[in-house]
Amino acid sequence: MTSNPRILFKKRPNAHELPVVGEHIVIDSSTTIDLDRVPLTGGFLTKTLILSPEPAMRERMRDPSVTSYTTTYKLGAPITGFGVVVVLRSEKEGVTVGDYMYGLTVWEAYTVQPYIDSRVNFKPEEWAPGTFDMDSLALQVVPNPNGNYSLTKYASILGTPGLTAFVGFEGIIKGKEGETIFVSSGASAVGSMVIQLAKLKGLKVIASAGSDTKVEYMRGLGTDFPFNYKKESYGSFLAKHGPINSFWDNVGGEALDAALEALLPLSCIAICGTSSTDILPPSEHYRLKNAHLIMKKRITIRGFIVPELIPQFIGKFFADIPALLVEGKLKSEEFVIDGIENGPKTFIDMLKSGHEVAGKLVIVVAKE
Amino acid sequence: MTSNPRILFKKRPNAHELPVVGEHIVIDSSTTIDLDRVPLTGGFLTKTLILSPEPAMRERMRDPSVTSYTTTYKLGAPITGFGVVVVLRSEKEGVTVGDYMYGLTVWEAYTVQPYIDSRVNFKPEEWAPGTFDMDSLALQVVPNPNGNYSLTKYASILGTPGLTAFVGFEGIIKGKEGETIFVSSGASAVGSMVIQLAKLKGLKVIASAGSDTKVEYMRGLGTDFPFNYKKESYGSFLAKHGPINSFWDNVGGEALDAALEALLPLSCIAICGTSSTDILPPSEHYRLKNAHLIMKKRITIRGFIVPELIPQFIGKFFADIPALLVEGKLKSEEFVIDGIENGPKTFIDMLKSGHEVAGKLVIVVAKE
Repeated sequence: MTSNPRILFKKRPNAHELPVVGEHIVIDSSTTIDLDRVPLTGGFLTKTLILSPEPAMRERMRDPSVTSYTTTYKLGAPITGFGVVVVLRSEKEGVTVGDYMYGLTVWEAYTVQPYIDSRVNFKPEEWAPGTFDMDSLALQVVPNPNGNYSLTKYASILGTPGLTAFVGFEGIIKGKEGETIFVSSGASAVGSMVIQLAKLKGLKVIASAGSDTKVEYMRGLGTDFPFNYKKESYGSFLAKHGPINSFWDNVGGEALDAALEALLPLSCIAICGTSSTDILPPSEHYRLKNAHLIMKKRITIRGFIVPELIPQFIGKFFADIPALLVEGKLKSEEFVIDGIENGPKTFIDMLKSGHEVAGKLVIVVAKE
Repeated sequence: MTSNPRILFKKRPNAHELPVVGEHIVIDSSTTIDLDRVPLTGGFLTKTLILSPEPAMRERMRDPSVTSYTTTYKLGAPITGFGVVVVLRSEKEGVTVGDYMYGLTVWEAYTVQPYIDSRVNFKPEEWAPGTFDMDSLALQVVPNPNGNYSLTKYASILGTPGLTAFVGFEGIIKGKEGETIFVSSGASAVGSMVIQLAKLKGLKVIASAGSDTKVEYMRGLGTDFPFNYKKESYGSFLAKHGPINSFWDNVGGEALDAALEALLPLSCIAICGTSSTDILPPSEHYRLKNAHLIMKKRITIRGFIVPELIPQFIGKFFADIPALLVEGKLKSEEFVIDGIENGPKTFIDMLKSGHEVAGKLVIVVAKE
């Protein structure tokens, strides 16, 4: 028998509260698995290699009565998220031992796929219209990088963050050479990809982050005007280096308000995240003063998550992005945390953006 | 010689200040015109029949350094706005004595067209990109209604307000049968048209206004749930009668904030006006607390003015709307003010929404 540690979702944190390790998410080291004999019942057995902590996981911890874009987690079951696994045994056609697979998987060391226990029994009529059944995402076989790039890239450029940046940039921003874009949280996995896609298209890029290390990271990605919003306000920096043709927003609040001032008429905003308010109670949310400018400047704003735009752009993503990565025209840094037992803390660090270092947080559960 | 009273733009009101009659806009009764002999130099002479006071006129009074969607007024010249004129003499091909024409004209009794004095010498490089040169709009010959409808309809359904509602509903809202729409300022010229277009398509309509008379007016247009926002808050009314699939916003502020709460995922907002904040200094603007919901609900917001969508929809507008009006399937009420000398006060009343009566304010300068 082999130890199979996992992360359980034990209690829903209150709205806008950070989850607490041991209270809301707990490490369960008591489970074991017989890798050679566990029944597969037509499925396949995977070993988890990397896990990617992402903001959507916090949305899934909310109470189901609160409307958001995704289904919630089941209490008592292991949490799920995007990751890369390798196939150890298979009874399923099209899935072969040794395959690497990317997609939604369970935060545990070994999993019989498709996983059932964590899965919401999704009935559309029980959810707000348009709620995305995250558990419907199946693992997909992905190329073996053969040493050309690290599997940790699947937690950044080659995974959901990179895909989110790609579909939003192609489908909403549609940036053209010579234009100026402002990217908030530019050192994040999504933000750093948006910066690079914009530079490849010949845009001028302004980008913000919360530490000087991150500012240098953004500069290294080609950002023309990176800044630390804790040292200079969004408003004053954009007044100096704007105006802007588009805004990629990962944070909301003051960044959004300042961008509305700096945006040109007929410009656009892609809202991909609201990290500045996600962990605050509504009474402490920054309140927008510039909403009237949406009309005065005829601005188009679109809040989105990646599934809506995937069908249109997934082909182009896999045609273009891995090659650009291998050629060194796209870069990313990941900040690696070893061991699934450090997963819960890493997830909370990601929510707090509390790490001073640049690079996407990624949990390496096992080496290949 | 005939008296030719006109309204002059004398001084720019401070930002967010209501203009004052006699200070910012003044009635000039000293001018005369020789209707038989005034040189036309290839143009034509018109007699003003009706004038339509509209919010965009206040935008044109701002200082040119403030970015907005339109060019500003020239100081010292007569103000301009949408209206209906009749042709008295013509040297221009395609324009015949007796023709009715609709479009941008001068707030005076008689005008040699095309008017020159009030016109901004538009150089795009001197304005924010996308600034609309309002003076570029030429008068267009329109059908003689032959008693089928009043010319005052050109200040409401058949004019810019009706066209604005039509292009926004067709191009942005795209409402479908069975959906629910919320319309703020539903008794306004634009709002009342949106309500009726929505009812024609089979939508459920919620609409707000600021007096009980207006609530009854909206009910008469077919509104399922009309309400007086001064008696019941936007938030509580929408909580009772929502959720909503789309929001047509003429006012901004609290209405917009409440709509964000009531909107369903993947819904949309057309922002056509911001009357709740237009006459307030920024420090007194209502500050939005629900901006984060744009992302959580994947909402699309579009601020717009009518010119952007005219090319796509103008044909359908003139094919459908006059016929629906004659058939009685579209209604509008206008509140008629006689005499150009009452124009400035009527314009300011419109800005204040201070009139308790329902119906679009329209100035009848002369009978046909």
